[in-house]
Amino acid sequence: MPEGWLCRFAPPQESIVSPNELEHYLHQNIPLSQAMHVSVVSVRPEDVVLSAPLPPNINHRGTVFGGSASAIAILAAWSLLHARLHDEGTHSRLVIQRNTMHYERPIDGGFTARSFLSDPLAWSVFTRTLRRRGRARIAVSCVLEYAGRPAGQLDGLFVALGMESD
Amino acid sequence: MPEGWLCRFAPPQESIVSPNELEHYLHQNIPLSQAMHVSVVSVRPEDVVLSAPLPPNINHRGTVFGGSASAIAILAAWSLLHARLHDEGTHSRLVIQRNTMHYERPIDGGFTARSFLSDPLAWSVFTRTLRRRGRARIAVSCVLEYAGRPAGQLDGLFVALGMESD
Repeated sequence: MPEGWLCRFAPPQESIVSPNELEHYLHQNIPLSQAMHVSVVSVRPEDVVLSAPLPPNINHRGTVFGGSASAIAILAAWSLLHARLHDEGTHSRLVIQRNTMHYERPIDGGFTARSFLSDPLAWSVFTRTLRRRGRARIAVSCVLEYAGRPAGQLDGLFVALGMESD
Repeated sequence: MPEGWLCRFAPPQESIVSPNELEHYLHQNIPLSQAMHVSVVSVRPEDVVLSAPLPPNINHRGTVFGGSASAIAILAAWSLLHARLHDEGTHSRLVIQRNTMHYERPIDGGFTARSFLSDPLAWSVFTRTLRRRGRARIAVSCVLEYAGRPAGQLDGLFVALGMESD
């Protein structure tokens, strides 16, 4: 296990970035996250879970607007990379390059977005490439869940630029 | 030219759905469009143009948040189908099934989203299938522009369900 996250003795559910800190950061820096009433449920190395209620994200049919679903999935995916890099003491500019989004069923109420590395083993190559070349790409996925069932999935490709250590 | 839009004698830039009507509809029914300060610039059979300012859509880097970019592109794509079907006197439920989004360059200020049918010739098959089977799919694209240059593109697949005439 070559990377910092996994070598630590702290239980994996602990993180330097707490849910409250991440939520505050999102609300302060990305006003749409506040407009969508996004809450941070949990931040772990393996996944970040965000949630949002229906009313600010509703569409003309009384279900979640696809743009809200897409936006919260992107937020969750970005948050995972932000938290993992922060926990390694590095600050890179993270840019989304592309994503696909599948809307599987309508969401009629509050929902969650759980992001995770599309390939967890890619992390060590990603950070090594970032250190060596100052630029690296990594794929992050995000599952939207409503009433205990998947309702959609985002697959995104992010680029990290620059590598500044604490 | 088999379809209603194109057979009319009215100039193509005229539409039953006016920009003001569409903007009012979006703001009333999709609160995120109001939070993003979305304006409707134009509604024509061939394209719908929306615009949004930077401040409500900003991210931690001072550029447009990818989730906002994606959401306004989805709104513009949906609006085109809504306006075209409305102009034909039909009301179908429009559902986004999937989309891809490419983010080509950062957006540092107010921006526009121009949606159009990915294949304009597909419209007649779409409406015919919708009338016959009560369900049909169609692809819509949307280009984001900032400072006169493309900044991103969405390609979305929508499903229309049900066909109720006025």
